[in-house]
Amino acid sequence: MRSSSPLVHCITNRVVANFTANVLLAAGAAPAMVDDPEDAEVLAGVAGALLVNLGTVTRAQAAGMRAAIAAVNAASPTVPWVLDPVAIGALPLRTGLAAEFARQGPAIIRGNASEIGALAGGTGGRGVDSTASPDEVAEVAENVARSLGSVVAMSGTVDLITDGTRTVRVTAGHPLLTRVTGVGCALGSVMGALAAVTDPLTAAIAATAMVCLAGETAAGDGSTDGEVGTGTFAVRFLDALTLTPADEIAQVLRRPVPSGSAA
Amino acid sequence: MRSSSPLVHCITNRVVANFTANVLLAAGAAPAMVDDPEDAEVLAGVAGALLVNLGTVTRAQAAGMRAAIAAVNAASPTVPWVLDPVAIGALPLRTGLAAEFARQGPAIIRGNASEIGALAGGTGGRGVDSTASPDEVAEVAENVARSLGSVVAMSGTVDLITDGTRTVRVTAGHPLLTRVTGVGCALGSVMGALAAVTDPLTAAIAATAMVCLAGETAAGDGSTDGEVGTGTFAVRFLDALTLTPADEIAQVLRRPVPSGSAA
Amino acid sequence: MRSSSPLVHCITNRVVANFTANVLLAAGAAPAMVDDPEDAEVLAGVAGALLVNLGTVTRAQAAGMRAAIAAVNAASPTVPWVLDPVAIGALPLRTGLAAEFARQGPAIIRGNASEIGALAGGTGGRGVDSTASPDEVAEVAENVARSLGSVVAMSGTVDLITDGTRTVRVTAGHPLLTRVTGVGCALGSVMGALAAVTDPLTAAIAATAMVCLAGETAAGDGSTDGEVGTGTFAVRFLDALTLTPADEIAQVLRRPVPSGSAA
Repeated sequence: MRSSSPLVHCITNRVVANFTANVLLAAGAAPAMVDDPEDAEVLAGVAGALLVNLGTVTRAQAAGMRAAIAAVNAASPTVPWVLDPVAIGALPLRTGLAAEFARQGPAIIRGNASEIGALAGGTGGRGVDSTASPDEVAEVAENVARSLGSVVAMSGTVDLITDGTRTVRVTAGHPLLTRVTGVGCALGSVMGALAAVTDPLTAAIAATAMVCLAGETAAGDGSTDGEVGTGTFAVRFLDALTLTPADEIAQVLRRPVPSGSAA
Repeated sequence: MRSSSPLVHCITNRVVANFTANVLLAAGAAPAMVDDPEDAEVLAGVAGALLVNLGTVTRAQAAGMRAAIAAVNAASPTVPWVLDPVAIGALPLRTGLAAEFARQGPAIIRGNASEIGALAGGTGGRGVDSTASPDEVAEVAENVARSLGSVVAMSGTVDLITDGTRTVRVTAGHPLLTRVTGVGCALGSVMGALAAVTDPLTAAIAATAMVCLAGETAAGDGSTDGEVGTGTFAVRFLDALTLTPADEIAQVLRRPVPSGSAA
Repeated sequence: MRSSSPLVHCITNRVVANFTANVLLAAGAAPAMVDDPEDAEVLAGVAGALLVNLGTVTRAQAAGMRAAIAAVNAASPTVPWVLDPVAIGALPLRTGLAAEFARQGPAIIRGNASEIGALAGGTGGRGVDSTASPDEVAEVAENVARSLGSVVAMSGTVDLITDGTRTVRVTAGHPLLTRVTGVGCALGSVMGALAAVTDPLTAAIAATAMVCLAGETAAGDGSTDGEVGTGTFAVRFLDALTLTPADEIAQVLRRPVPSGSAA
């Protein structure tokens, strides 16, 4: 990714647009945020990847998403794209859009267990409730991946990435990653950047490792949750994305995963 | 607030959405920014508090605000909400919206003397001109609070918070707080987070103390205005919100207030 | 600028709105972001300068831009404004808007060689292709400046600023300036702030010197591109804008320019 600097077209939420762009630039990719349907259609067809994030979606923005998804699917070869169904479930507009978009072939769907469960329900499968065991949660993710033909990346204490057949767990990260807005949304954009240069399963795994390791580096070696403020943490997180060598990131994937754990 | 992590639904301006979310996360609350009217109506009814900030309001965003305000007022029990009438006075769209929304029962109205004065004028009271004395300014704030049944939090060199009967002044803060965009807007969101767990007057006072003290901590002990850059200041401000113990924040409220001073 | 603190009305892209506001505040100006056509018309007429940036333009935002441009041109005296035609060329909505707006008398047009070339093509001149020599690129910029009556500021390894008759090159900056989103967009806003207090050619040159020098300061003295992360760089960049004395900025303009170089 760092050598080819893929262009990632992001139609994303207004809260995290700046942070997402800075994460992509730090990681070596090139962000472009274009929402207007007419312009989005042109850009999506020539980008290396597309991100569709529903975090602050409105009907106006959804029109741009539709145009961009149609363009990436019509391109030859098709352009890989990532769907991030932020906070779907109870909110009607975004829940409907997620169900509509999920059927249009995203390379990767990224969300937490609640969002992936809501997507499962919305596309005819079974959801995730709070009593679900780790194995049951993993099964929901695998079912979504198989039924939609997408890689599913489910974030949590342990991250789970699956194409429905192969399932990988990543044990990395830091609690402060949940105290800076937009880390998960930016992770989706990095998955897109990597999907521009490799297969979706590898892209989702490598992006997760990269972002989680940057979080660990940002928190510092001997620190606990309370000792680094979120302002300093966010600065160091971008620094780590800029400076961490690729071989250190790859090491994250060789860590053992606790038995019985899931997303 | 840190133990219950209230969900604050923010319909706020595009300049400060990211900073507001990070301030809420640093302070221990959970932000959610949803503008679409259909989704905003659902979210507002289940949130701990709502923030309506007019900083970059458009007619499209105003529709989401109307839906959210109706939902919080229809919820049982009602959800407290904060109105921040940014830059009202000369600009017609936002000035009209502020007058409309102010009559719908915000728990807290947060603004500077000019904005509170404009709101007074728009709701039939007397405004604030540049020749007003501190006592006259305080009287305008108290009249607005009484006529609308809201707590009014008027920011300035000295912050003034009043429910129309009881008036509290907070002497804290630092000039650099005005050199980082969105501090006042984020303060409104923290007032919302605290209003989810206590009464509006206490919430407005405690939020003001928390934000002002974080500004002092960020500026550093021996510094003057010119010695800390605004980049470092903003990072340290978020760090201070993350790390400052609650009992230190409470100390701010025991400081003496200079005689004759007002917002 | 630091003494008069000019109000800069920015109708700019959602990715960089926060960073632009913080850059203006750090540099001593006062930002105001208002997109709604009704409010934008009132604000633009009383601002010190207007910035129109097409980075995430939609048809809704374009309506606010049209209203604001009409207001600055109708004001007496007229208010100077800056056009930043971000990523025009292939994208139809923004390319058409840039051609429309460029004919309405911007004091300064700021962009890279590709954008200025696209503007030249769209207004009947000759574009810039990748085989163009530095002298050919400079000629395109000078032709655009003369045909539109605007100062053209073309960013690149060497920045070129011209009013069509006088052409100045600024040799300053650092590669990390391209790894933080919105530096170029924020530069346009600083040009606006300075155009509120001096002539457009001087404003564009001084803003370029200020932003480039802040980038050098942020990167640190002995550093190379890889040693400072982009998080730390962005913080130090704002610090440098806050703290660098004006006479140091002026020194940048006395540097020799490499022979044969252009934007």
